[in-house]
Amino acid sequence: MERPHQSLGTVSIIGVGLIGGSLASALRDSGRVDTIIGCGRSAANLDYALDLGLLDHWTHDPEEAASAGDIVMLATPISAVIGLMPLMEQALRPSAVLTDVSSVKRSVTLAARSSLERRFPRFVPGHPVAGSEKSGASAAKADLFQNHWVILSPLAETDEDAVDLVTDMWVAAGARTRLMEEALHDQVLGMISHLPHVVAYALMPLLGTQTARDDCMTLAAGGFYDISRIASSDPVMWRDILLHNGPVVRDLIAKYQGMLGELDRLIESADGPRLESWFANARELRNAIQELRPSRKSDFE
Amino acid sequence: MERPHQSLGTVSIIGVGLIGGSLASALRDSGRVDTIIGCGRSAANLDYALDLGLLDHWTHDPEEAASAGDIVMLATPISAVIGLMPLMEQALRPSAVLTDVSSVKRSVTLAARSSLERRFPRFVPGHPVAGSEKSGASAAKADLFQNHWVILSPLAETDEDAVDLVTDMWVAAGARTRLMEEALHDQVLGMISHLPHVVAYALMPLLGTQTARDDCMTLAAGGFYDISRIASSDPVMWRDILLHNGPVVRDLIAKYQGMLGELDRLIESADGPRLESWFANARELRNAIQELRPSRKSDFE
Repeated sequence: MERPHQSLGTVSIIGVGLIGGSLASALRDSGRVDTIIGCGRSAANLDYALDLGLLDHWTHDPEEAASAGDIVMLATPISAVIGLMPLMEQALRPSAVLTDVSSVKRSVTLAARSSLERRFPRFVPGHPVAGSEKSGASAAKADLFQNHWVILSPLAETDEDAVDLVTDMWVAAGARTRLMEEALHDQVLGMISHLPHVVAYALMPLLGTQTARDDCMTLAAGGFYDISRIASSDPVMWRDILLHNGPVVRDLIAKYQGMLGELDRLIESADGPRLESWFANARELRNAIQELRPSRKSDFE
Repeated sequence: MERPHQSLGTVSIIGVGLIGGSLASALRDSGRVDTIIGCGRSAANLDYALDLGLLDHWTHDPEEAASAGDIVMLATPISAVIGLMPLMEQALRPSAVLTDVSSVKRSVTLAARSSLERRFPRFVPGHPVAGSEKSGASAAKADLFQNHWVILSPLAETDEDAVDLVTDMWVAAGARTRLMEEALHDQVLGMISHLPHVVAYALMPLLGTQTARDDCMTLAAGGFYDISRIASSDPVMWRDILLHNGPVVRDLIAKYQGMLGELDRLIESADGPRLESWFANARELRNAIQELRPSRKSDFE
């Protein structure tokens, strides 16, 4: 529920990377926050964000950041989100709200259930479906979330006012929110995001082994270049995503292998008509997707 | 060898689609051609090109177009290129030059050897590594080839003056040419273009079968959207490419499936360090490719 004129208070962002930095930037521009505190390991990165005006101050200490926030945002790779949970239980003020931006929900919520006892109802699992292959506060953009979806996956135990506050924050950042059950989130994101990254990562080493590698690299065009951009995403973030959505991703890989096998058989049997209709269907599906999206050229903008 | 002030004469373009239309447009802008004749099956498409000034006139009859050209460009899907070869043998004037833009070279050259007897030395196999997922003369762009590579794969029998003329034509269109042996061409393009299209095409039907398809389609982001653009390429053109480079593509599919299997095993065994280094290597490779390319955001521009 929007309360357009009420301040969001102090927002503490732990992990001031592309997402955390962009959120800081968007919230700053919204004029809806009093104070933005950053927390992370790289002083250089945090100073950069401070100099840009994204932060009011920063700390290396997550406990300090968490205890000061009305909203505490965990925007680190998933392994760190999970690692920080016990500290959050200790540091969060009773009225504070905890949220995250992890690309996998079940795994994080499971860890949160274990680690947060009193504070579990204050945790609002979230995931902005936005971003680019770039990393760090230097890549932060105030409009990163503009017109993008943020998925919120509250549990039965989650406080309603906590959900409202996190919704309000994302609306202030220019996004639109929607609720999605956590298992469904992981399945959907597995399909539209995690599998495509596996697909891209699997392609890259082939270029390295390919004869005439230099020819390939100079010419890299015709689809390879576009797919390879996806594979330049942050290695640590994606290591964690694929590990934490393992069963879903592996199931999708198996299905995808099946599709490759079918295409291979059609090529082997020189089945022109079936290949043509496969490709025509793909084109139709692409057109249908385009019609449903706000006018955007790429995921990565 | 460039002869910057000599007219290219009459250029006949059979197949006035994205590539043929863009070539017409680029050559028109260059001021280096006297006459551009179009040939194809769709009167609407040809009229469109005529109205845009890309063509001086058009015909449905490939024999008429071929007999009039100093340069005869075959820019249809590969199956039509091969089907037209016997007609080319009959229609081409002795001094005329025949060339193509097919994404597969060995298969086309093999067919040319069979069909063109006297005219085989006049045939210069070519392939501009440029384009987009769009189709038709309405997608034609005068700068499509600007700073792009055009691969020429002349044979031992190919006349040198024919190669020079085709080179000159592509330079006039804004491109740069390079020679590449035909089998190497098919291997390289298999890796950087054909396999990526297979990879994209294999992904698409999974969205159709995916539970919560509507959720997927609305959110389609995070990599899926970008990859799906590749899969909206022209179905007939790609049917022909994959069929005509079948052995190379199937070998690459097998290798690619091996990579997917390795990634799957790493996820299964939760091997974080190996996943992270795989992804870090992918990022490095992407950066290296970017440094070698003229400043372009995408293959498809």
